[in-house]
Amino acid sequence: MTAPRIVYLNGEFVPFEQARVPIMDRGFLFADGIYEVSAILDGKLVDNAAHLARLDRSLGEIGIRNPHDAAGWERLQTELVARNGVTEGLVYMQVTRGVAERDFAFPKGDVAPTVMMFTQAKSVLANPLAETGARIITVEDLRWKRRDIKSVALLAQVLAKQQAAEAGVAEAWMVEDGAVTEGSSSTAFIVSRERVLVTRPLSTALLPGITRAAVLRLAQEADLRIEERLIPVAEAYEAQEAFYTSASAFVMPVVEIDNRTIGEGRPGPITRRMRALYIEAARQG
Amino acid sequence: MTAPRIVYLNGEFVPFEQARVPIMDRGFLFADGIYEVSAILDGKLVDNAAHLARLDRSLGEIGIRNPHDAAGWERLQTELVARNGVTEGLVYMQVTRGVAERDFAFPKGDVAPTVMMFTQAKSVLANPLAETGARIITVEDLRWKRRDIKSVALLAQVLAKQQAAEAGVAEAWMVEDGAVTEGSSSTAFIVSRERVLVTRPLSTALLPGITRAAVLRLAQEADLRIEERLIPVAEAYEAQEAFYTSASAFVMPVVEIDNRTIGEGRPGPITRRMRALYIEAARQG
Repeated sequence: MTAPRIVYLNGEFVPFEQARVPIMDRGFLFADGIYEVSAILDGKLVDNAAHLARLDRSLGEIGIRNPHDAAGWERLQTELVARNGVTEGLVYMQVTRGVAERDFAFPKGDVAPTVMMFTQAKSVLANPLAETGARIITVEDLRWKRRDIKSVALLAQVLAKQQAAEAGVAEAWMVEDGAVTEGSSSTAFIVSRERVLVTRPLSTALLPGITRAAVLRLAQEADLRIEERLIPVAEAYEAQEAFYTSASAFVMPVVEIDNRTIGEGRPGPITRRMRALYIEAARQG
Repeated sequence: MTAPRIVYLNGEFVPFEQARVPIMDRGFLFADGIYEVSAILDGKLVDNAAHLARLDRSLGEIGIRNPHDAAGWERLQTELVARNGVTEGLVYMQVTRGVAERDFAFPKGDVAPTVMMFTQAKSVLANPLAETGARIITVEDLRWKRRDIKSVALLAQVLAKQQAAEAGVAEAWMVEDGAVTEGSSSTAFIVSRERVLVTRPLSTALLPGITRAAVLRLAQEADLRIEERLIPVAEAYEAQEAFYTSASAFVMPVVEIDNRTIGEGRPGPITRRMRALYIEAARQG
């Protein structure tokens, strides 16, 4: 028998079935909130300080008070992970502007943000897709202009991922002006024909990926050549290797984009090396 | 003593305080939902068939099954309005893709959409702002590309309205490539120096406003000259008159844009006429 699933909600650890928010929560009415996801490996949070720093930044960008400092967050996360007995998977955190009568502008007075966290137990390490490599498609990037803010206004990403699901593939890379911006829930990388690791530079057009940053750091330490520049879709099709990164996918090889085989159609050597280096670093903490 | 406020939620009329949704509702996690707002005047719904048709279209565009036909919706709306004793104000409707374990792609199987409605009692007819005229500002349009879908992914509109609130004005007109797209929760109109009523043509770049359509129809019946074309911000500053329309603001005169006085700084004759014609038509049903 497994323990009942527990959710953290506004200061309390409650049974999953009882975790509800009022209909006037601005997260529900306006997507007026921010989220983060940290992976759990060997029972420990991966790169959590960076996720909490990004959470703090996202909240600041839309003017929501961060209800906890990093140590406070980590205490709550750790307790939630323990209560749910999760050793591998992820912890999801969401903060909204709170509950107030519906009106677009921020509520007046000191409205408490809504704070919610849950865990998902899943195998992130032994992912069969990492062995075979993922097939992906490209879709139009429909998102708003502040993609550096990790908000819950995710409808464009939902529609992109659904297009991928309907095409029977694992992920969709979003394209704007002929270049890849990022995946629907991941950062896009290629290894170019010149054997250079390429990913888009940070801007308001994409999320500053935590796994992206870790991979770039590890690639630099491994003396790989790196370029931060746009990836034209045509170049992605011709890449030697391709992969995407996220908190839960780690480094995921891509072997097919829009039905075009990438490289030799199996995870390439640089991709496999980056995945191994990332997992090693994640386990070491 | 007033009756307790009642919310419609998934087949039941429940006290406001009990109206809660599970944290796994896709409206709360992903902004994966659609909404509509109909005005209530003299206890009756204004232009409701058009709002329900747009609700149906928005749901179809993102692949959510419409849980009710128009007659079914109107029965529920009418009962909710009666239970809350609202004779003037608005009824808000929201439909999300329902409750499922968090995953970007649509949930598999037949997940019931979440259906929620509430009313707000407010004076929409005797709005003092309609007498003096509204001051507004322009802001950058940060929204996604499918603005014809009335989704709850409203964070960009929230930020726009908050900028207006901080500037001490009533509304923000969003601007893209030097032209006004629409207001943060309204459609933008000007009366040009040639005394032509101008508003942006319909496209995926703006919401097909129900009040917009009614005003254009009434303007045509009144033999006004009408152009559907982009409104450059510079032209808006020099307009003879300006106003915005929405289900709850009706026709709202604009007397100042970015601190520049419009026309003579008071509601202009064409604007006042359009407001009177719209209210007359709304009351006649």
